[in-house]
Amino acid sequence: MVNDTALETLYKTVDQNQDDYVERLREAVAIPRYEARDIGCHDMDGVNLQLPPIILGTYGNDPNKKTILVYGHYDVQPALLEDGWDSKPFDMIETPKGQLVGRGASDDKGPIIGWLNCIEAHQNADIEFPVNLKICFEGMEENGSEGLEELISKEADKYFKDVDAVCISDNYWLGMTKPCLTYGLRGICAYKVTISGPGKDLHSGVFGGTVHEPMTDLFHLFSKLVTPSGEILVTGVNDDVAPLTDAENQIYKSLEFSLSELHSAIESKTNIFDNEIETLQHRWRYPSLTLHGIEGAFSSPGFKTVLPAKVTGKFSIRLVPNMDPNRINELVEKYLKDEFAKLGSKNTISVECLHGAKPWIANPNHWNYVAASKAVERIFKCKPDLTREGGSIPVTLTFQDALNKNVLLLPMGRGDDGAHSINEKLDRSNYIQGIKLFGAYLHEVASCKDE
Amino acid sequence: MVNDTALETLYKTVDQNQDDYVERLREAVAIPRYEARDIGCHDMDGVNLQLPPIILGTYGNDPNKKTILVYGHYDVQPALLEDGWDSKPFDMIETPKGQLVGRGASDDKGPIIGWLNCIEAHQNADIEFPVNLKICFEGMEENGSEGLEELISKEADKYFKDVDAVCISDNYWLGMTKPCLTYGLRGICAYKVTISGPGKDLHSGVFGGTVHEPMTDLFHLFSKLVTPSGEILVTGVNDDVAPLTDAENQIYKSLEFSLSELHSAIESKTNIFDNEIETLQHRWRYPSLTLHGIEGAFSSPGFKTVLPAKVTGKFSIRLVPNMDPNRINELVEKYLKDEFAKLGSKNTISVECLHGAKPWIANPNHWNYVAASKAVERIFKCKPDLTREGGSIPVTLTFQDALNKNVLLLPMGRGDDGAHSINEKLDRSNYIQGIKLFGAYLHEVASCKDE
Ligand SMILES: [Zn+2]
Ligand SMILES: [Zn+2]
Ligand SMILES: [Zn+2]
Ligand SMILES: [Zn+2]
Repeated sequence: MVNDTALETLYKTVDQNQDDYVERLREAVAIPRYEARDIGCHDMDGVNLQLPPIILGTYGNDPNKKTILVYGHYDVQPALLEDGWDSKPFDMIETPKGQLVGRGASDDKGPIIGWLNCIEAHQNADIEFPVNLKICFEGMEENGSEGLEELISKEADKYFKDVDAVCISDNYWLGMTKPCLTYGLRGICAYKVTISGPGKDLHSGVFGGTVHEPMTDLFHLFSKLVTPSGEILVTGVNDDVAPLTDAENQIYKSLEFSLSELHSAIESKTNIFDNEIETLQHRWRYPSLTLHGIEGAFSSPGFKTVLPAKVTGKFSIRLVPNMDPNRINELVEKYLKDEFAKLGSKNTISVECLHGAKPWIANPNHWNYVAASKAVERIFKCKPDLTREGGSIPVTLTFQDALNKNVLLLPMGRGDDGAHSINEKLDRSNYIQGIKLFGAYLHEVASCKDE
Repeated sequence: MVNDTALETLYKTVDQNQDDYVERLREAVAIPRYEARDIGCHDMDGVNLQLPPIILGTYGNDPNKKTILVYGHYDVQPALLEDGWDSKPFDMIETPKGQLVGRGASDDKGPIIGWLNCIEAHQNADIEFPVNLKICFEGMEENGSEGLEELISKEADKYFKDVDAVCISDNYWLGMTKPCLTYGLRGICAYKVTISGPGKDLHSGVFGGTVHEPMTDLFHLFSKLVTPSGEILVTGVNDDVAPLTDAENQIYKSLEFSLSELHSAIESKTNIFDNEIETLQHRWRYPSLTLHGIEGAFSSPGFKTVLPAKVTGKFSIRLVPNMDPNRINELVEKYLKDEFAKLGSKNTISVECLHGAKPWIANPNHWNYVAASKAVERIFKCKPDLTREGGSIPVTLTFQDALNKNVLLLPMGRGDDGAHSINEKLDRSNYIQGIKLFGAYLHEVASCKDE
């Protein structure tokens, strides 16, 4: 049973100290880049740089308590005033509306400082910390988390051995007012398809009409991948998509989301589906295929009468359960080669599978989610939305695969925080209520029965 | 009647002076760029530059002689030793095989110095010049002949008034051993097709599958333009192509051309047709359609999960008689819009016709061609090939339209001169025999009966 009185005391302490917490976040935002030396090296532009450290910490080791691992990252996207910020990106300001504006405020310094504030609030309020906490804060998230996966697998049976569940606060509410728990992410398979003809670029006047043109082949081939309404045409690719269950469909009915939010995000009304549910389902739980571009063709403004000799088209497929990247690679490669053969071109094709990441899905009925859901009800007086996301957060899958424990995505910020944009912000209320949420979640975890 | 003895004297003079002619070409090659000031201005990279002068000259004005206008250009393509030249591009050298290597040697300083040498040879040999000569040498050919068309139309009834025919030496033999006369060029219509969807580039993970993607639409649309074997699919575009006549087909049978030359030019064996005649007919007398590239998509090496918001595809159609650029523009625009409508996309399309140039064809039985053909037989002891070209030489059409006189393309160099490449060369024999050819041509012109 959660000790409600203790929690009320905790909330009060958080409220009393909120200005200190904001100051602490301001200090964190003011560090544009961590300069220490630690976990290995990295070649950038030919220079061998030391990787920033991964900070591991343990708070409590009572064998009678559950152990929760929290992950966050202290590195941020680059930001310059000249990019169009209304204030200096590394001097956090608070607007009259209570928005804390600064690079990293929401992604991901607010959450990591939030966890530390949560610990301090327990100390100040003299309340026993309800779980053993392990922290893992890295500094390379915005650059592919280099070095993290290696460390996690190396430490899985050591530092991470007693972890019962994982909580990651590095995504956002779906909208502006309703908290959510996120239990799924799409995976990705990325491809490069190169069609080679002449040994060098040719003049279209001299050779147009007499040679098989790689660009023509590529346009024919890629037009066979996906329809203008987003249906993937690659044979077999849709076969492994998990069928939509009634229970799952039910989740979509209560989500805080409207097409007008989509319209303002995409700055147009070119959505395929005319309703919210299908839109979110195609964002989260169905695959999609996007053509990104061509390398080797003419791409500058203006005009050039070139007949490109060798062109590389790039596309990717977003994966959902139960699609397997290796199986998808086989299907895509076979389909492309079969369709290319039908073109009757003398050019040659090569297909390269770049990276593949599996889709991720967690069980939203696991005690880790139940605890978070109850905590949301305590702080926000409503049930959280159960969301998934269309993109991938690779570390999620890394933790799940290496530790084989339930992973929860518990966002602190709102859908309009603008994580990688100018004027990134975190609302003061999200920050302060978020600290309380983290506390309530840990207390709920402590009182949950294991499944 | 041509005075054969006079011509033999002329040839001897040319042979005797050939080292002087080579020195003269060396001096011309050594001038990388003309720096004088004259016919107007031109904005380049925001700087207003004076255009180089167009040199007009008249040699003789005997009302009993025909007047021949010769055109050439003294500007050249840029060249740097670092581009891969085996010798300094502006220090002409002669190789042991007798190749004069230097930027502009063949394109187009050899021919223009050749005309001047031809005049001097008549003076040195004390032979009456057989025609009135008008010269028009420009310095902007490699940059779109800016200012030339205006000057030609302004001077059509003045300086160019008495011109009976035009001779342009600014192209090349089809192969390495047999001279040719060129009587046709393809025209061009160039297009930009923009498909616009979202207001900004999106993340394919977040939005893939829920919005109509401009790239998908563009690939579907452009796949409807042309087949992998080069057949243009735009409704009506092939209707105005002049039918191949027996007489015309006959011309192709004697041409000096082999598929192996094509293979070495394209550095592959990806030709569509397995015989020389169809290959040349599709290069010269049938239209073709080439896709050049996409602006606005991802075009760098590597990978980026972008969903491009607005993409502009670029393509062009090479035109042949009797295709009219305005009519082709109408057909293309209608076809693209009809096909786009069939896609059922909410994105929007805009089609922009960039420049259009009509195809050019001259009558190869005109006395201008007959004279040139007889001159070739005198110097090279063979009938010239009658060729066309797949690209366009816009000045050709400009002269024909403004003066309404027959235009002859009489090349001096060989098919492998590498006009715009590294190690551009002109064979000494082509240069010296070319000077004789110019002389013989003018004498044959003088003795031709007007049609
Ligand atoms: Zn983040
Ligand atoms: Zn981020
Ligand atoms: Zn040129
Ligand atoms: Zn030229």
